[in-house]
This record gives sequence, C-alpha cells and structure tokens, in this order.
Amino acid sequence: MKKKAISPDKGNRLINDGCTILVTAQLGEKSNIITLAWQTPVSSSPPMAAISVAPSRYSHQLIATSGEFVINVPPLSLLKAVVYCGSVSGRDEDKFQGAGLTAESAAVVSVPLIAECIGHLECQVSQRISAGDHTLFVGQVVAASAAEDLFEEVWQVEDERAKTIHHLGGSFFAAPDKIVHL
Amino acid sequence: MKKKAISPDKGNRLINDGCTILVTAQLGEKSNIITLAWQTPVSSSPPMAAISVAPSRYSHQLIATSGEFVINVPPLSLLKAVVYCGSVSGRDEDKFQGAGLTAESAAVVSVPLIAECIGHLECQVSQRISAGDHTLFVGQVVAASAAEDLFEEVWQVEDERAKTIHHLGGSFFAAPDKIVHL
Repeated sequence: MKKKAISPDKGNRLINDGCTILVTAQLGEKSNIITLAWQTPVSSSPPMAAISVAPSRYSHQLIATSGEFVINVPPLSLLKAVVYCGSVSGRDEDKFQGAGLTAESAAVVSVPLIAECIGHLECQVSQRISAGDHTLFVGQVVAASAAEDLFEEVWQVEDERAKTIHHLGGSFFAAPDKIVHL
Repeated sequence: MKKKAISPDKGNRLINDGCTILVTAQLGEKSNIITLAWQTPVSSSPPMAAISVAPSRYSHQLIATSGEFVINVPPLSLLKAVVYCGSVSGRDEDKFQGAGLTAESAAVVSVPLIAECIGHLECQVSQRISAGDHTLFVGQVVAASAAEDLFEEVWQVEDERAKTIHHLGGSFFAAPDKIVHL
C-alpha cells in the first residue's frame, strides 16, 4: 500500500474518530505491538496524542524506557490481528509474526511501523502521568503518514479499505458507515 | 427516553468507541455545553476518563473552578446540536436554549445532564494536566446511566437511535454501521 507523508499538524485527524489503534514500541532488539482503544489527541500545536497503558503490559516497559511509540491505524480487515494483539503478551510471543504483520522503518523514530496499517503517528513521549490503574503517555507527533488513496483531509470511510475499527466493549466492535457532512 | 443506572465500573463502555461527546459544566447559576471529540477512558479501577479542553474555552473555566463535569453521549440525530455546541461560546449564548436541549439533574454531581443524550458519565476532576495548547482533565466516574433500550453490555449501534457520532475532522462525521462480534 502506497503511503504519503501528512503534516504532523494534520496528523491528529488519523485518530480523531476515536478508532482502536495498534501501538508499536521498541527497545534494543525487542519490538512489540499492543492493541489500545484508549487514545485521544490532546493538543493541536504542538500536535500531541495520549494513550493509556496498564503498567503490567510489556509495551509499558518498552515505551517508558525508550520514550517513543508509534500509533498505527488498522483497517477493519485487520480485526483478527487487532484482537490477537490485545490478547497475548509480547513477553511470550513475537506479535508481528503471530499476527502476520510486517515491520517497516519509521521516518523519525526508532520504532517500527506496521506496513498493513493505513495510518501512522510517530510519537516522542513528552509526559507520563499515572491515572488510576493505567499510565497516560502523552506523545508529541513528530511524523505522520497515511495510505495515499484512503486519507484525503479525513479518512474516506466509505471505502471498505479505510474503515476504522471502534471497540464497543468485550468482543464487540463497529466500523463507520457513511460520511456525514454538516 | 427512559434511562437506567450503569455501574461506574462499566461506564467506560459508554465512550469506549471513541464517540464525540457533549460535556456539561456548571458554576453557580451558569451552566454550559461544549462539544469534544478528544476524550478517552484512562482507568478501569477506579473508573476514570480524560477530556482535553482548550484553556480559552468557557467550559474550561467552569470545570477548573467547580471540579466537576458530565460526559453526555449524543446520538446521530443530535448532530446539528453537536456542531452548534462546538461553534459558539457559552460566554455569549445559553447553549441549552440555543440547541433546544433540556437540562436534567444528575445523580451525584451538581452539573446538569442533557436529557436528549443516550448516556451520561458523571465525573469529579482528580487531575488537571497541561499538555501542549490544551488541558487534560482526568475525572473519576462517580455515576453512569444510559438509555434503557439502547445499551445492553455495549451500545446497540444497529438501532438508529443508538448510533454514536464520530468526528473525522472539519465538518465531516461518521456513525457506526453494524456490530461485529469476534
């Protein structure tokens, strides 16, 4: 899938619809993928996004130590991989291999992107906040990219390949239908 | 619309799909509504959610001073009100009146709910974090409620009345189609 660079200032739009994401992290030779529904943009200028990660998760350790992570936006066709990456631990399994996903070099950070995802936000951790039983990692978006045909100002969710995944809870998900313009 | 109480522990599911929300705030006699796409659950136990609000917004002042806010989940049929509440300032207009929305007493907090919304999370601010050009208010969910027919473990988004609103960016929105169970 051909990708194009997006201005980091517009990058927040890749996750503005509240989609479930695959976060990649890397520390030395070890990389990992974690599925997260708990994400939000938090700042326009500089562009920043926050993710909420439980301290027990392997990716928590990688992100806290390396200070970097990538938000990857999976399309609906990757739902099985999304559920898999949210169900097993990277301590036990190589999730790239287990999910059949391909690691690809990022533009700025040392963390791999997931080639099969349709959008990417490369983030450097600027704040780490303990909130209840999770940690909020606030990251500055230093690079962004998206599938050339599927992001035009916003996600073209009427195209089957651009349908983002939304986690309703438990094993229930939904995807967007039509674009409503108001 | 008849509402039922939801355990605050399950309340995060009302916003887990990343929907756009209407946040209500109150200080003394003044109440306000602000439209926000930037929200996420952040903790399971205790249940907590975070919203990102620009300091220039009138609601920022109300929430920062009162220490309380309510997350209201609007259905797709309220899209016009959602856009209106994101376009005008509560300093100039009474948005309940302007949007034709009805204020209703909350169960625990002193902030009104929006009767026409399908779900409500009553929050008490536990942390206030400056992140870039916005403030993250992290709130503990002290009460939750949802439309009796429309929330059954998760939002029943195949029912037209339970379709949540997702902000793609600019004036573009989307709503969920079918429930996918995996």
